[in-house]
Amino acid sequence: MSMDQMCVATYRCYDDKADFDKKALGIAVGLTVGSWTELPEARKAEMEKHLGKVVSVTVHESKTGAAGERYADIRIAYPEINFSRDIPALLVTVFGKLSMDGKIKLLDLDFSPNFVSAFPGPKFGIEGVRELLGVQDRPLLMSIFKSVIGHDLEGLREQFYRQALGGVDLIKDDEILFENPLTPLEKRVETCMEAARLAERETGQKLLYAVNLTGPTANLAANAKRAIAAGANALLFNVLAYGYDALHMLSSDPEINVPIAAHPALAGAFYPSPHYGIAAPLLLGKLMRLAGADLVLFPSPYGSVVMPKEENLAVQAALIDPALPVKASMPVPSAGIHPGLVPLILRDFGQQVVVNAGGGIHGHPQGTAAGGQAFRQAILAALEGTSLPEYASRPGNEALQAAIQLWGFKE
Amino acid sequence: MSMDQMCVATYRCYDDKADFDKKALGIAVGLTVGSWTELPEARKAEMEKHLGKVVSVTVHESKTGAAGERYADIRIAYPEINFSRDIPALLVTVFGKLSMDGKIKLLDLDFSPNFVSAFPGPKFGIEGVRELLGVQDRPLLMSIFKSVIGHDLEGLREQFYRQALGGVDLIKDDEILFENPLTPLEKRVETCMEAARLAERETGQKLLYAVNLTGPTANLAANAKRAIAAGANALLFNVLAYGYDALHMLSSDPEINVPIAAHPALAGAFYPSPHYGIAAPLLLGKLMRLAGADLVLFPSPYGSVVMPKEENLAVQAALIDPALPVKASMPVPSAGIHPGLVPLILRDFGQQVVVNAGGGIHGHPQGTAAGGQAFRQAILAALEGTSLPEYASRPGNEALQAAIQLWGFKE
Repeated sequence: MSMDQMCVATYRCYDDKADFDKKALGIAVGLTVGSWTELPEARKAEMEKHLGKVVSVTVHESKTGAAGERYADIRIAYPEINFSRDIPALLVTVFGKLSMDGKIKLLDLDFSPNFVSAFPGPKFGIEGVRELLGVQDRPLLMSIFKSVIGHDLEGLREQFYRQALGGVDLIKDDEILFENPLTPLEKRVETCMEAARLAERETGQKLLYAVNLTGPTANLAANAKRAIAAGANALLFNVLAYGYDALHMLSSDPEINVPIAAHPALAGAFYPSPHYGIAAPLLLGKLMRLAGADLVLFPSPYGSVVMPKEENLAVQAALIDPALPVKASMPVPSAGIHPGLVPLILRDFGQQVVVNAGGGIHGHPQGTAAGGQAFRQAILAALEGTSLPEYASRPGNEALQAAIQLWGFKE
Repeated sequence: MSMDQMCVATYRCYDDKADFDKKALGIAVGLTVGSWTELPEARKAEMEKHLGKVVSVTVHESKTGAAGERYADIRIAYPEINFSRDIPALLVTVFGKLSMDGKIKLLDLDFSPNFVSAFPGPKFGIEGVRELLGVQDRPLLMSIFKSVIGHDLEGLREQFYRQALGGVDLIKDDEILFENPLTPLEKRVETCMEAARLAERETGQKLLYAVNLTGPTANLAANAKRAIAAGANALLFNVLAYGYDALHMLSSDPEINVPIAAHPALAGAFYPSPHYGIAAPLLLGKLMRLAGADLVLFPSPYGSVVMPKEENLAVQAALIDPALPVKASMPVPSAGIHPGLVPLILRDFGQQVVVNAGGGIHGHPQGTAAGGQAFRQAILAALEGTSLPEYASRPGNEALQAAIQLWGFKE
């Protein structure tokens, strides 16, 4: 079996005294053909193509002192012939039973060309989203609804309009807004898209509204199509609550022809432990992209929902890595973002990024619309390399001035 | 809002110095109405019914010494009016964003009567599975296929037949056997059910074959129906790879009229960390049952895939707790089980349990059929309160004799 026909899983495995080479071999055999050494030679010839292979075992002996723990990074290649070309099958194969076998974390997956060819990936990706918006030359700006539970359509319309007036490119539903009698899906879409059209007359700017796609698994595709028929031009989806395959199902449906933004809800149940779970760059990066997310929200390094910066950057890298033969997903680092952080965000993430804010827009002293404007001004400042205070002092940039007075800034 | 109309989440939250009461209030407000104190009084009256409530905060100050960590168990009630009656909506509400907010683990969920009424629960449950098998008076015995990847239908038939001859009640597919050209779903079902009928002539005993239900989310129900049309009388399902709602969809489909066994694949990505994730009794107990699993496999306290015994028993307790108004799910503690452990298993779990073995059946010195027989003999011994060595010494119980010679026993 050529390595080209195998998917490779990378694990980090902690153990004070294990023989990691033996453990790796146990995984490679145990999760594929089950047993090997006792097979008759003739049978081995037949079974060879199903046998997992140990690619590498890198042992890190414990450092002196209490902090050090002995661990190994283990790479195992699994023949693609053993599983169907879907994410549940791959995850169950490489981390089904193994996830329960001691201190072990799934760090990464490399897909075989044949496996990956079953995934169309994001329909729009970074370029497609930019084309829809007609914005090529600057980072995008996304605004998050503030409180929406218990609000009626009129309240939603007003909040949407104020956000849109600020010049944001995308507005996303709160991920905890579900089907409800006050703002049911289609009415919500119609109301918000109408507010978007009104605002466009003022701003001259297009806008995507990512409405939260919820409900039973069996109705997701139909709900998406209902939303689209009502005018929705983007969807928000809590991927991990439904499984990656549900996202794959939606993204590969030709009738669901709008960008899908993946929300990281529940991700903290998987990635933060050093010893267990699935690493963020795989969980929120590679697998979200493979499953077809056009935009992916993930914790920013700036807010209270903290992820170490190197992990943030690794999520971003996975979303845009040219080695994966599907479109790149737009990175959306989220939480704790105010206009004063924009130069830092652009330095950390480059221009292929969505600057995403909730409190940093709604909490602006001059109101929500000024909040969006302050961000747009901060983006322009950063792009021309002007310091925020200097840019803010120019006439017309009072919104940015007020923002950095309130929240400060980082250069 | 009465507590009867709220779902309550219990969290364990670690922090050296946090004001846990403040944190709890932040959760109750932040994950429901968003903000509260700044609302005008008239608005508060309208929003009250959407507002989360802090039920309790129990702070455990850190013990002296390095091992102790300061933590609090926090219970928050969420108005059911805020989310739709499905598990993704509930999980995203109570642990979507919050899962990423520091060291916090979701321990438990209590459902409101109205929420739970949307879930028919297991179609068969413990009683229904027993009725199908016609076995009321003893624990059930399940056998796991050994290696199946790379085997053809003839190999599968032979292995199935030998397991069935041993007198097992259920045989489950390997959870890593997917749709494949050697043993495609319908052929596999036909072949194994034919072997079951042949064995029944010898044993006089009924048998359930849980065939692994796999493939794209959108095809799961159709695949289940194909399997049933081909003769399948049970299904195995890797619930966590697809999300609980997929299980709910299958279990509430009237045409899927066979028991569903939930496999815990990927569970180790959620439950083992003390600081993050979802506790096993909720993950593998309460939610599996609510979503409709008739049988639930979970790590036993006896094998290499270890879970502390109190956690095992808490999973079992959640599967059979009479407080949840749906049928009880049959507990299937799995891994590391040989006939010598049967008295211990019955003491730990009682009689409403499936004794589930792989290596403990296939590894029997006299072969697979003798492996099953040894378990059945051990079960009879335990039920009549006879020690295993004594029971094994009686004529006809040579299979048990050989098993305890190889693996030992615990009384």
